[in-house]
Amino acid sequence: MRTNRAWTLVARPEGRFKPTDFAWTESPVPPLEDGQVLVRQLQLSLDPTNRGWANPTATYLPALPLGSVMRGLGLGLVEESKNPAFAPGDYVQGMLGWQLYFVGDGTGLGRFQRQPGVPLDAYLSVFGHIGATAYFGLLDVGQPKPGDTVVVSGAAGAVGSLVGQIGKIAGCRVVGIAGSDEKCRWLTEDLGFDAAVNYKGGSLARTLRRACPSGIDVVFENVGGDVFDASLMLINRRARVVLCGMIAQYNEMVPPPGPRFLVNVLTQRARVEGFIVMDYAARYAEAFDALGRWMAEGRLRYRADVVPGLEQAPAAVNRLFEGGNTGKLIVGVSPEPGERE
Amino acid sequence: MRTNRAWTLVARPEGRFKPTDFAWTESPVPPLEDGQVLVRQLQLSLDPTNRGWANPTATYLPALPLGSVMRGLGLGLVEESKNPAFAPGDYVQGMLGWQLYFVGDGTGLGRFQRQPGVPLDAYLSVFGHIGATAYFGLLDVGQPKPGDTVVVSGAAGAVGSLVGQIGKIAGCRVVGIAGSDEKCRWLTEDLGFDAAVNYKGGSLARTLRRACPSGIDVVFENVGGDVFDASLMLINRRARVVLCGMIAQYNEMVPPPGPRFLVNVLTQRARVEGFIVMDYAARYAEAFDALGRWMAEGRLRYRADVVPGLEQAPAAVNRLFEGGNTGKLIVGVSPEPGERE
Repeated sequence: MRTNRAWTLVARPEGRFKPTDFAWTESPVPPLEDGQVLVRQLQLSLDPTNRGWANPTATYLPALPLGSVMRGLGLGLVEESKNPAFAPGDYVQGMLGWQLYFVGDGTGLGRFQRQPGVPLDAYLSVFGHIGATAYFGLLDVGQPKPGDTVVVSGAAGAVGSLVGQIGKIAGCRVVGIAGSDEKCRWLTEDLGFDAAVNYKGGSLARTLRRACPSGIDVVFENVGGDVFDASLMLINRRARVVLCGMIAQYNEMVPPPGPRFLVNVLTQRARVEGFIVMDYAARYAEAFDALGRWMAEGRLRYRADVVPGLEQAPAAVNRLFEGGNTGKLIVGVSPEPGERE
Repeated sequence: MRTNRAWTLVARPEGRFKPTDFAWTESPVPPLEDGQVLVRQLQLSLDPTNRGWANPTATYLPALPLGSVMRGLGLGLVEESKNPAFAPGDYVQGMLGWQLYFVGDGTGLGRFQRQPGVPLDAYLSVFGHIGATAYFGLLDVGQPKPGDTVVVSGAAGAVGSLVGQIGKIAGCRVVGIAGSDEKCRWLTEDLGFDAAVNYKGGSLARTLRRACPSGIDVVFENVGGDVFDASLMLINRRARVVLCGMIAQYNEMVPPPGPRFLVNVLTQRARVEGFIVMDYAARYAEAFDALGRWMAEGRLRYRADVVPGLEQAPAAVNRLFEGGNTGKLIVGVSPEPGERE
C-alpha cells in the first residue's frame, strides 16, 4: 500500500506563512472507489495567490478549511484509475494539493500531452497557468497596440517575464519593474526588455518616468502598493491597467490603503480590470499554440526555479514574497519515470 | 460701453477655495473684432471639478494661468456678433468663465434652442453636462442590466440624483449614498431610490451591506475615499465601477491613499473605468432626447439650487465640498429678457 505524504494547513497565517501553519502528515492511500483516479504528483506550483487561499475568507476560490491538505496546483502521473476518462500513464494537471498522492473523481483534472524535448517544468510555467495568464492578461485585457509603452511589475517573476516578452512581440516598448539590479539585467540583456528599473534602487517615480518618456499605455500590475502608484502617475489617455496581482499586500492582515493616483484613472479615462486566468480555461490551447510557436522561433524564453522535495514547500513559498525567485517557482515532488530521484 | 465684472484667479488654493484666491475686477468690454462674439452670461455652473481647474497642474484640461478669469461652464445670450455663426438673441453654452461678459471667436460655444416651459437652469443640469454625465456614465460605462444593484455616491448631488433615477428606469435596484437623513429621504421618497444610506450616520460598511443584500453590480462613484471603499467591499463578479468623481480628495494638497479594497477588483474580475463627459459631446442629443422623454413621462426629476449674484461664486463653490447643495449648484449671473433682475 502506498503512503501519502502531505502538508496540511493547521493554522491561519498571520503575515507570511510560518512553518507552524503546516503539519507534515503521512497516511496510507486508501484503495480507489469506482470513478476515482490516483495521481502521483511530480511537480507542485508555488504561486503568490497561495497566500490568499490560506485565509479564513473566500477569495476567487472558497476558503480552505483548517486541517485540509494545503491547496496547490500541480502536475502528475495517473498511477491507477477506476475512472474511464483516465488511464495509468496519463499526465494530468489540477489542484493536486501539497501532497505526493492525490485521489479524486477526476473533476478539475486536465490531461495533457507530454511533448518530447519540452522540460516538465514548462507545463507549470509557459504551457500552464503562468503562460495563459501572461498571454490573455496582456493581449485580451491589456489590448496593447504597436508602439504602446507597456510597464510590467514583478517583471522577473514567472508571469512578468513572459508578459514583457509578449509585449515586445506585440511591437511595444516594454519596461519592467523588478527588485534587484541583477534581475533588471536579466530582463534587458537576456529577455529583450527595452528598460528595467529596480524599485529598491532609489525614487521609483523618477526612474520610471525616465524609462517611459511617452508615458504608459498598458500597466500589467502584479505588485500593488507604491509600485502601482508609480505607474499610475504616468498613465496616458485611455490607458489599460491589467490588475493581475497585488503581491505587496498578500501578507497584510488588514488591506493597506490603495494607490494615491487612482484619480489619474478618472482624468485619463483609463480602465482598471481585474483578471483571473481560470476564466480563460476554455481558451488555453490558443495561448499554448502561440507561446510554443514563439519559443520555437527563439522569441520567448522562460526560467523555472525548481526546489527539490515536498518537505521544502512551506519554506520555499515565502521566497515569492521576498523577491527570492527569478522565473517560475516550483517544488519537485517525485521523479518522472526514467528520471533519477 | 459695457462694463465687465469678473472673478480672476489670483492665488492657487491650498485646500478649499478662499476668498483671497480670487479678485473682483471691473473693466470695459472692448469693441468686437471681426469673427468675435459677445455673450452676456445668464447662469454659471459650479461643479466639483472646478477645484482641480485651479491647481497649477493640468487635469483633463490645461492648468489655468494665475491672473486669468476663473474657468467655468455657463450659458448666456449673444448680444453682439461679428461671427456669421452667431446672431444676437442666440442662447449659447460654453466655458464663459466667472464673468458677466464673455468675448471670443466662438470656438467651444454651442448654441441651443430655448424650449418654452423649460426652466433656464435645466440647461445647466438635466439638459446639460450633468444630464449627459449621468446618462452616458451609467448607461455606456456602467452597463447596468435589469435586476442589477446600482450604488451611487454623492447621490443627492446634481449627477447622482439623475443617475439613480436612470438606474430605476433601467430596471435596477438603486441605492444612494448621501450625507444627511434629509437627503436620504429625498432620494427614497421623492426620487424613487430603493434605499439610501447616510454615510455620516454610523458604519457605512454595515449599513450599505444591509441595503445591498445581493451585493453591487454597478458602482457610480462620485466621492472616493472611505465611501468608495464601502462599495468596493461589496462588488459582485464582473462589477462595473464608473469613476466619475473623487470629490473627497479634490481639496487635498497631496493625493490621499486610495481604497483598501481595490484587491476586490482583482478577485471579482471587476472593471474600474474613468469617465469625462466631454468625450461624449458628439452624442449629447441622444441623452437629451431620452432625458426629455423621461421628464415628460414624469419618471425623472431634477433639482437646481440657484445662488443669485456673480459676487457669491467664491463662497458658493465651497458648498459643493461641504454637502451644502442638493441638486445642481448654479450662480445666477444676469436676468433673461423679460425676467426681473
